[in-house]
Amino acid sequence: MQRWPKHRLSLFRLLYSRSNRSFSTAKPGIPNPLVLQVWGANTGVGKTVLSTALLRTAEQPSLYLKPVQTGPSLAADALLVSKVAPDARAVTLHSYNQPVSPDLAASLDDIQPPTDASLCEQTAHGLGQFLETINILNNHTRALALVETAGGALSPVPSGALQADAYRSLNLPALLVGDPTLGGISTTLAAYEALRIRGYDVSTIVFFANILQDNVQLENEVSVKRVVEKDGISVFQAPAIPPIDVPLIEYCQTPAVSDFFTNLSEHLYDVQEKRFRNLKHMQERASDIFWYPFTQHTSLGSVTCIDSASGDMLSCYDQTNGLHEMVDGIGSWWTNGVGHGNAEMAKAMGRACGRYGHVMFPEATNAPAFELASSLLSGVGQGWADRVFYSDNGSTAVEVALKMAFRKRARDFPEHTGKPVKIVAIDGGYHGDTLGVMDCATESVYNEQQTPWFESRGVFFEAPTASLVDGVWQVHMPEWTGANYDIILSGRGELMDRNRDVPVYSSKIKERLDTAEASGVEFGALLIEPVLQGAGGMRLIDPAFQRALVAECRARGVPVIFDEVFTGLWRLGSESGAGLLGVQPDVGVFAKLLTGGTVPLAATLASKEVFKAFDGEGKAEALLHGHSYTAHASGCAAGVEAMRQYEGLKGDREYWDLATARELSCADEVEEVVVLGTVLGLKIRGDGEGYGATGAKKVIDRLQQEGVFSRPLGNVVYIMSTPLTDRAWCDEVMKKVHRVLTNGSERTSKRAEA
Amino acid sequence: MQRWPKHRLSLFRLLYSRSNRSFSTAKPGIPNPLVLQVWGANTGVGKTVLSTALLRTAEQPSLYLKPVQTGPSLAADALLVSKVAPDARAVTLHSYNQPVSPDLAASLDDIQPPTDASLCEQTAHGLGQFLETINILNNHTRALALVETAGGALSPVPSGALQADAYRSLNLPALLVGDPTLGGISTTLAAYEALRIRGYDVSTIVFFANILQDNVQLENEVSVKRVVEKDGISVFQAPAIPPIDVPLIEYCQTPAVSDFFTNLSEHLYDVQEKRFRNLKHMQERASDIFWYPFTQHTSLGSVTCIDSASGDMLSCYDQTNGLHEMVDGIGSWWTNGVGHGNAEMAKAMGRACGRYGHVMFPEATNAPAFELASSLLSGVGQGWADRVFYSDNGSTAVEVALKMAFRKRARDFPEHTGKPVKIVAIDGGYHGDTLGVMDCATESVYNEQQTPWFESRGVFFEAPTASLVDGVWQVHMPEWTGANYDIILSGRGELMDRNRDVPVYSSKIKERLDTAEASGVEFGALLIEPVLQGAGGMRLIDPAFQRALVAECRARGVPVIFDEVFTGLWRLGSESGAGLLGVQPDVGVFAKLLTGGTVPLAATLASKEVFKAFDGEGKAEALLHGHSYTAHASGCAAGVEAMRQYEGLKGDREYWDLATARELSCADEVEEVVVLGTVLGLKIRGDGEGYGATGAKKVIDRLQQEGVFSRPLGNVVYIMSTPLTDRAWCDEVMKKVHRVLTNGSERTSKRAEA
Repeated sequence: MQRWPKHRLSLFRLLYSRSNRSFSTAKPGIPNPLVLQVWGANTGVGKTVLSTALLRTAEQPSLYLKPVQTGPSLAADALLVSKVAPDARAVTLHSYNQPVSPDLAASLDDIQPPTDASLCEQTAHGLGQFLETINILNNHTRALALVETAGGALSPVPSGALQADAYRSLNLPALLVGDPTLGGISTTLAAYEALRIRGYDVSTIVFFANILQDNVQLENEVSVKRVVEKDGISVFQAPAIPPIDVPLIEYCQTPAVSDFFTNLSEHLYDVQEKRFRNLKHMQERASDIFWYPFTQHTSLGSVTCIDSASGDMLSCYDQTNGLHEMVDGIGSWWTNGVGHGNAEMAKAMGRACGRYGHVMFPEATNAPAFELASSLLSGVGQGWADRVFYSDNGSTAVEVALKMAFRKRARDFPEHTGKPVKIVAIDGGYHGDTLGVMDCATESVYNEQQTPWFESRGVFFEAPTASLVDGVWQVHMPEWTGANYDIILSGRGELMDRNRDVPVYSSKIKERLDTAEASGVEFGALLIEPVLQGAGGMRLIDPAFQRALVAECRARGVPVIFDEVFTGLWRLGSESGAGLLGVQPDVGVFAKLLTGGTVPLAATLASKEVFKAFDGEGKAEALLHGHSYTAHASGCAAGVEAMRQYEGLKGDREYWDLATARELSCADEVEEVVVLGTVLGLKIRGDGEGYGATGAKKVIDRLQQEGVFSRPLGNVVYIMSTPLTDRAWCDEVMKKVHRVLTNGSERTSKRAEA
Repeated sequence: MQRWPKHRLSLFRLLYSRSNRSFSTAKPGIPNPLVLQVWGANTGVGKTVLSTALLRTAEQPSLYLKPVQTGPSLAADALLVSKVAPDARAVTLHSYNQPVSPDLAASLDDIQPPTDASLCEQTAHGLGQFLETINILNNHTRALALVETAGGALSPVPSGALQADAYRSLNLPALLVGDPTLGGISTTLAAYEALRIRGYDVSTIVFFANILQDNVQLENEVSVKRVVEKDGISVFQAPAIPPIDVPLIEYCQTPAVSDFFTNLSEHLYDVQEKRFRNLKHMQERASDIFWYPFTQHTSLGSVTCIDSASGDMLSCYDQTNGLHEMVDGIGSWWTNGVGHGNAEMAKAMGRACGRYGHVMFPEATNAPAFELASSLLSGVGQGWADRVFYSDNGSTAVEVALKMAFRKRARDFPEHTGKPVKIVAIDGGYHGDTLGVMDCATESVYNEQQTPWFESRGVFFEAPTASLVDGVWQVHMPEWTGANYDIILSGRGELMDRNRDVPVYSSKIKERLDTAEASGVEFGALLIEPVLQGAGGMRLIDPAFQRALVAECRARGVPVIFDEVFTGLWRLGSESGAGLLGVQPDVGVFAKLLTGGTVPLAATLASKEVFKAFDGEGKAEALLHGHSYTAHASGCAAGVEAMRQYEGLKGDREYWDLATARELSCADEVEEVVVLGTVLGLKIRGDGEGYGATGAKKVIDRLQQEGVFSRPLGNVVYIMSTPLTDRAWCDEVMKKVHRVLTNGSERTSKRAEA
């Protein structure tokens, strides 16, 4: 999906970092170089005139950067700027001869167009070079750089992508030049909306005055101002662009014009200052108003303000580092599916919201809910699922799954009525924080002290787990198996072989379940996360063990629930965990990646047999569970769009380099490594387990220094991409992880070879 | 917010209803008259040429409707149509002299502009008259009506509102004329996005060919097609518009032109047919793939397909009634806050999605989450709340509240450790369907058969309720109060007086709680819905009783939770239920109206004392509860926008006419009436309670006949507006309710007067 933007990290540091030397004279935390991207509501609205006039007002040095230019006089705009604002450096990156849209122009010139990523990199590089210069000069409190776009906001770049999409990852604040002609209210507002929905900061709109022939003056700026002022946007009217026979320099020298642009420049610096004041305020106050999940507030350190995000990157602000970019190393708590700030997703959700809002669901349908359900049934549900039940998050969706399974079991075994109902599960599982699913875990710090109503209600198996240790894949057999050894494997391929069988599992599982049943326990469901336990610490459970568990439960009529909230929808490089296991459940739960990483939505899929267990005379027999926002159109539309974007994914995908993973497993600090699909998990040796672990925290800190944001799970450090992240990006991140853990030590590599 | 659109119901019936006589020859369920709204990517792109050429291809009769025309030759476009397509009826509604935007033109002509509502009504009326004519003629299988907009998609209408917003409630399918000039890719796609985010069906985009001077042909349609085809949109290029000196009729008669528009017309009918086939398919298949909440599938009737929604109206499709509009009488399960299809909301959510997606929340912040929390603390939390904890829905948010309260209690009374913890609550309360909050209710059909883990864990008080009976407000005293009578009140004012006190409440509550405590029970929290129990059947609990309950719990150190999921944020005509009671809780829960009716989001607000109960050395003492999508930016942005739209609401607002409510309480079928804020509840006399009630179902059916969609709560029929619905709209709905329940019977009125 996205190439590693080589220049972005350094660009951001240069632009906004407080520690930048050139900002020593500035107000704390407020960057001085003003970098703006100039956009037009349409072509020919005066972008270049505005850029030129603004650059004339700048204290030196200043930069005019035109990434793409079309028209017979190559670099025409940059030449004009050079002539009228001679102190500005004027740079054009790509020029094409025909005055048409850049993609058409490139093809007419028969020139291979640059990719969007390289266009962004070149732009960032140009800005970076300029900012370095300021740094070296170190005596300018106010520098100005303008990046001028070509045509309207949604005009194509040479690749054919829309301009507003192509430049999004640069995160540059936008200055929009309005269309002052008849129809210009519409084109300006539409361009404004197009930039806003893509996440751009549009703080200011400038119109050039426009006098019609019969002396009627259009007041587009008045109409536009009325609409946008609630967003806190300023709208200005600049003196009319001079006729073609008046040299631009004369226009710029007119006192009214010169005053206008001097004031505009002041305003733009003020906007930037205000923006950073707001970020600072938010960062300072956040810890006073929020009650954070999973956070001990007495030891809460500095809060990170996430200003925006794009792809796998977060644009963060804190007072120590200013505004800076970080790799989102954990997919924003495992939710990021299609990349942050995904315009197609934003449009899909916005459209559903504008078409419906939320519309009630029981005995009704809306198109997004219908399309998503159809797509799930023919995707992750293919071959087994008959029904889709929507709810709001993984935790509630698992509770729904339990109700389904318990009822099925009760219908099938009415003679067991009255026995205490328990689940069969694996130690270390996690299904959410609502009180019902909390009971589906063994006693731990996560539940015992959290509510007096907690009661562990299951028969829990300590699981055989698999990992890379010192370069070798192995399965670690727990004591109950009677196997006093680790199983050494030829590689991950052997581990994941859907036909692999470890006979001791079945016999021991049978024994244990028989004993429990004999003691009067009724099993209402088997509840497991297939293949990988996420919150449990990225633990790869031996698939052969899970298959045996499913088979033993099936044999005694216990419904099988797969909690795929974490594992489902390409998290593990495959469409579902069930697919990796090669076993289908009776009930499957999906959430997180379901909306591509936007809003909460969950789906509990069930087989026909489970569904039929709720048939009855009256409503009392029905599943009386529902949330107000059940099947909310915006979330379902996000789901439909996410499924569309995942569509190209096929087979078992590899994200992280397995050879490097093997090397990492040999590093001194690393006890074991798990690598599967988008997940790379590293168990760090240290002086404690769980919350007491300090080794993992140290690794996290070093990753942070490398620009990678991550969080520990006890003594496990993990890195997670999105299902759409491309391999090159993962390789770059992997290099950072490798650097952090090996310091390039030769010994480590040798151990890996051994 | 919205006036009752007088002509809309009838328009829809005429347009799309299967029972319409003129459709007898048509394919079942597929309407024949094709009504399209013609939009422009910009002004001057050829809307009128396109309309004219299309109308020439129509089988008679056809209609050209221009709601707003500007320019010196009044009704110029309609005149042109009349000349070139003489068989079409051509109508102009409003003309202004100056060729500028309609709001400016109206002010230059010094003419009072029509409101948006009346512009829509007039347009609908014009369409309606035309469609009636077809009905009478009854021999035309294909009629065409085009409503042509003025300028670009976001150009203003005379009121100054944007055209795409002003016409939204008409729900007309859109035909977009693209901009073929330089810059036209951008303006066309931006207009397309502007229409889409407002929920319009844009099925087709047509460009007129455009040859540049040096014979380069712009290929805007190619670029636009590449972008929109994934949305299933067709893009066509029509033969170039002739030069000004060639009469339009000549152009239209050219075979290439004539063929193009004949084919386009075929395509547009096909699109409409496909649209209805899809609706039909969805309606038929929905019951095969969904598992509906709270629904016994064995008795599931016909499913309603909600095709779109606007304000308080749903646009529904089913095979019996075709596409038809219904009043959303229950605010889409109590969620609708700012009106369906609210463009400001769609833009706010789309923007947050495009700027962030979801970004992780612990130890971090994003602007929408920060703004919403600040706004809640200075709004519903003012004077008591210190912290905001986000979660995904009311049910989980109440579970969070319980964890908070239980910990506070445990910290304050460590000596009670080990005692069984219960809540104090009111019979008939409802807090959601997750397993934890299910335990906060007495045994009922909603919980006992739903899960074997259910255990009612509370001391529940049967509540004194208040209602209008036979025109008189009274409080119905339960037996335990020892009061063997109903308290007759002077009116609702007396009931809601924040100083009213019923001394017997306190003494009896104290007695009961003392007894329970003496038996070894520990009270972890008081959990109530302030003032009105929603799911319990729109039961108005005597506020004096709730105040007494709070006081008695406070006196013994039991934390007080108000579940305001239903009651909060202007549901009851006041900012919160707490405000109506005049009492503040320790923990307050908000959801539903929090996002204005778009996506799930919940906030649990807590006092500083509650928050401090989680202080500790390590993370184990912290509140270890969190959802992946905690504080998701899109939902929080929706919240910020909802709060902005609610901002104008002040004091205690009345939505439903109290005099009519009094009359209704005298109707034969009505046992009692509750009316407060946006809620009108009617308990219907009948032959059963709860699910067995048939009286309520009959009333629901009659309301359905009147075009009002509602659902029963046992034997209660209720109607609910949004907090922004205007009084005139409520009055219209109230009239329908009155008609349904009284048949204008005189006796009823007399009883009310007595």
